[in-house]
Amino acid sequence: MNEFGLIDTLRARCAQPRDDVVLGIGDDSALLAVPDRRQLVACADTLVAGIHFLPDAAPEDLGWRALAVNLSDLAAMGAEPAWALLALTLPQSYPCFVERFADGFSELARQYGVALVGGDTTEGPLSITVTALGFVPPGRALTRRGARAGDAIFVTGTLGDAVAALYGLRDGVLGAGRTTVAPALLTAMNRPRPRIAAGLALRGVATACIDVSDGLLADLGHICAESGVGAELDAEALPISNTLANTFDHAACIDMALSGGDNYELCFTVPSARAAEIAGLFASIACGATRIGHVVVGAGVVALDARGNRVTTRSAGWEHFAH
Amino acid sequence: MNEFGLIDTLRARCAQPRDDVVLGIGDDSALLAVPDRRQLVACADTLVAGIHFLPDAAPEDLGWRALAVNLSDLAAMGAEPAWALLALTLPQSYPCFVERFADGFSELARQYGVALVGGDTTEGPLSITVTALGFVPPGRALTRRGARAGDAIFVTGTLGDAVAALYGLRDGVLGAGRTTVAPALLTAMNRPRPRIAAGLALRGVATACIDVSDGLLADLGHICAESGVGAELDAEALPISNTLANTFDHAACIDMALSGGDNYELCFTVPSARAAEIAGLFASIACGATRIGHVVVGAGVVALDARGNRVTTRSAGWEHFAH
Repeated sequence: MNEFGLIDTLRARCAQPRDDVVLGIGDDSALLAVPDRRQLVACADTLVAGIHFLPDAAPEDLGWRALAVNLSDLAAMGAEPAWALLALTLPQSYPCFVERFADGFSELARQYGVALVGGDTTEGPLSITVTALGFVPPGRALTRRGARAGDAIFVTGTLGDAVAALYGLRDGVLGAGRTTVAPALLTAMNRPRPRIAAGLALRGVATACIDVSDGLLADLGHICAESGVGAELDAEALPISNTLANTFDHAACIDMALSGGDNYELCFTVPSARAAEIAGLFASIACGATRIGHVVVGAGVVALDARGNRVTTRSAGWEHFAH
Repeated sequence: MNEFGLIDTLRARCAQPRDDVVLGIGDDSALLAVPDRRQLVACADTLVAGIHFLPDAAPEDLGWRALAVNLSDLAAMGAEPAWALLALTLPQSYPCFVERFADGFSELARQYGVALVGGDTTEGPLSITVTALGFVPPGRALTRRGARAGDAIFVTGTLGDAVAALYGLRDGVLGAGRTTVAPALLTAMNRPRPRIAAGLALRGVATACIDVSDGLLADLGHICAESGVGAELDAEALPISNTLANTFDHAACIDMALSGGDNYELCFTVPSARAAEIAGLFASIACGATRIGHVVVGAGVVALDARGNRVTTRSAGWEHFAH
């Protein structure tokens, strides 16, 4: 299939209709109508074969994930997603890749009404860069900068499932008594759910927010650095899925929850006086949110066990150039 | 240098100050203020080592080119550039790459006031995806769709220089009597100039416009396909630089001008009654514009020599998956 065949395939499967797409795939650039009284929110993330996914990953999962990791960055800003551009670099020898990739991409895109409006397809080592664009009312974006000492710290969903799947597939670390990786862990790795609804609900409530794609300690560390504060986490409060808890021992679960990457949950801070509102706010949001600690004067993130001792982890988080 | 060191380097060198960047590099996404009464224009293009540039290309040139090829796509829409996101995938073993890349990127970015506002850095085979964002007043964008039979066809600058440099460096085809590639040809390849001023001047004048990055025949073919027309080119009218003309024989120059890629000039159509305005319109635009043919009823693009015979070329244009 030549480049124009690839583009036609992507256009046919991923160009959701939206009134604000004046001109989508098929010209030199896309032409887009940003609504009045909205700021534009923009991010771009790359997935590289062998670095961000295993070489035998299913194209459908890659399509989903390449969009999901970007929608997660919009979610962390409290943004409403709208459009995406896709730069897909693909070896010549990959039959049916684009059809299958487009199926996974569009499955997620449809759920959020995201239209693929442009991009590039080229030959080369497998790599995917998605640019996601969304909106937020002026002054309402969530950032990393507003955490204050005393704020409560929350995280959505559960932590550690995706990295547990990676350890299983890549390293054969399956947990006691297991011979395969549990399906729920694979789903967490392959089909992360961007927490868009949570981000929207947190506008005007959260003082700071980030997605913990590089691991909770590392990413909460960014909030602390940008806000000029420290954080104390209660390791026993970390939300661990039943599947993870049934697969690994408690210390390993805590370690994965604190430092495992590919966790597309939101970590956010809320003034302590408003912490009680969070349960109600998340009543209709499936992922839920768990209070896991509080912001302190100082710098850096520590996690404390039930006896108040500092928990040490194997790594401080996923850092692409240092792993 | 770890990922955060890379990001700091890029931020320090490429984050031009702009009032409309509410939040730039350093959060989950950028936060941008689109001006009132403007549509957003968005594109993303990838450069892959060994496909779009030679493995020993200078990082400064790659930084310039990665931005230039995207600004060229904005220019083809008649857009004013504003912001860029950079997704840079880089082998671990490339010392000083980012500093040098950032120097070339920022050298061009400063000329157009483009701010780098976000993106991603990751490890992997060398590949660069830039997303460029700009504005155009509603209804004023140039597209590929408006060419009508009888319109005059123009192209900016000169054609064929970049591909001549590629033939020289890659294939050793240097032209009669030459032992190295002429500097002017290298500059055309390594430092293409996006025709932003031309695109802005053509708003309300051109009926269709495209950048001829894949070669004149191929890209004018896109205008014809989208507009439902054909095109007849006068091969003798094609603008050829003196350097190219002095390096290769006439037939080779025509061939490179018609089918050579990496030509970041604009090809545009104008109602014949307005063709005489173009010289005045381009009086203060350094690249100039040359009338090279006219739009006809039908389909496809033909180039005719001085005797009215059809010129055949070695290839129809640069198509990434078919070369």
